[in-house]
Amino acid sequence: MEIELAKQYGFCFGVKRAIKIAEQHQNSYTFGPLIHNRLEIERLKNQFNVGLKEDIREFKKGDKLIIRTHGIEKKNLQYLKEQNIEFIDATCPFVKKPQEIVQNMSREGYDIVIFGDKNHPEIKGVKSYAEHGAYVVLEVEELENIALSDRIALVAQTTRKIEDFKKIASYLIEKYKEVRVFNTICNATFENQISARELAKKADIMIIIGGKNSSNTKQLVRICEEVCDSCYHIESEEEVEPGWFENRKLCGITAGASTPDWIIERVKKRIEELN
Amino acid sequence: MEIELAKQYGFCFGVKRAIKIAEQHQNSYTFGPLIHNRLEIERLKNQFNVGLKEDIREFKKGDKLIIRTHGIEKKNLQYLKEQNIEFIDATCPFVKKPQEIVQNMSREGYDIVIFGDKNHPEIKGVKSYAEHGAYVVLEVEELENIALSDRIALVAQTTRKIEDFKKIASYLIEKYKEVRVFNTICNATFENQISARELAKKADIMIIIGGKNSSNTKQLVRICEEVCDSCYHIESEEEVEPGWFENRKLCGITAGASTPDWIIERVKKRIEELN
Repeated sequence: MEIELAKQYGFCFGVKRAIKIAEQHQNSYTFGPLIHNRLEIERLKNQFNVGLKEDIREFKKGDKLIIRTHGIEKKNLQYLKEQNIEFIDATCPFVKKPQEIVQNMSREGYDIVIFGDKNHPEIKGVKSYAEHGAYVVLEVEELENIALSDRIALVAQTTRKIEDFKKIASYLIEKYKEVRVFNTICNATFENQISARELAKKADIMIIIGGKNSSNTKQLVRICEEVCDSCYHIESEEEVEPGWFENRKLCGITAGASTPDWIIERVKKRIEELN
Repeated sequence: MEIELAKQYGFCFGVKRAIKIAEQHQNSYTFGPLIHNRLEIERLKNQFNVGLKEDIREFKKGDKLIIRTHGIEKKNLQYLKEQNIEFIDATCPFVKKPQEIVQNMSREGYDIVIFGDKNHPEIKGVKSYAEHGAYVVLEVEELENIALSDRIALVAQTTRKIEDFKKIASYLIEKYKEVRVFNTICNATFENQISARELAKKADIMIIIGGKNSSNTKQLVRICEEVCDSCYHIESEEEVEPGWFENRKLCGITAGASTPDWIIERVKKRIEELN
């Protein structure tokens, strides 16, 4: 039996980069969880002594802070600078982009509209770079009661769907003279889905690795099930059963966005051993 | 049969302004028809000796030229200046706006997309202000084979429908990093359209008055045809046929942005006489 990984799977570019940065900066702390994966955070703690602090005020001079993929609010960044706290910036470059856009557009006098979840740390960070009038919305209806100026800059949370973003843009375009639309949506999740479907089409068994409660992993499972009869959703190599692979020709493997490579590797190795 | 005028119809601000300018500058020539309305142009000739020349090379020093509402191509403006030909600018301010935007955005390095009819004088004029890469399109499909840079400025012909403009914008937003959308569609056209649709919904015959080559009048016809089975596009009362009105209950009347009130009045009178 052949084993093939999806062209794109698991961690996105920004998360991989952040983990590498954390591994290169032992004896440090992240401000908030670096990524939303408990096992990976435990590994960083055990292997690299990368700890976790949830409150910026807990950091003192001498501490080494890692800014996580979602970025940080501007006032917190200022606090670090004022307190001379060493920090390493692991903000995803795709998140840094809307931060910069919001700051520049705000300085040029544009009102800012951010399409995203106002409680998400990424969006809290992005919004904090506006120097005046910035509004975070998820629905067109929320814009109806906001009086915006005639020059608007629009950015999106990186993980949003483009179709929803276009609805917001359309509404603004109709009502305002100039809408400067920055498509800051990242295609990583979408690309995982496309790659999973491609592989599942030709595989006769698909192994999908990721948390049982992970919504993006469950979405991968659904996509694979549409084109492949034998799909198994597992969290670790311990769940792999030898019987699944009898008389199979091609085993496809993919993983959700919160699944670290080392778990994927262990699963792959286990399947190879059974082969 | 009842007769009802649309809530808003006929001349827009720019056309009213241009006619006033023409009336104030007797013994002059317009370069191309001042507005898309033959009868009004005849009136200006007869009452104010405002003539018409179609070729810029026909103008010589000593002539007085009126630039029409649609504006003029940049090279022609340069010719007038070089030849010291006196000119009065009756370009609609709402057309001047996209000209300026295209020039400025082009200088800032944006690729220009103009949503409009490449053969329309307004669009020829607007496009001429681009200093590089400018594309005129009416359909999303036309964009598929154009390789644009990642920074795009989008403007619209003033008389286009916002729904179609938003389709072009949506396509670009999905594909490119920054799309600077300038909604240069004129509200006058839009308001005429809303009023026409409202009236056409309840009328069983619609009379749409305006030049056969007037793009905004043709739009009105299309809009009315969507909701009313009997729509007639006429230029003057002479085209009105008695047979159209048999067994009708409500005749709606609207008119394009370049249709003078005196023509609308004549049409209305003619229909009343047939009633």
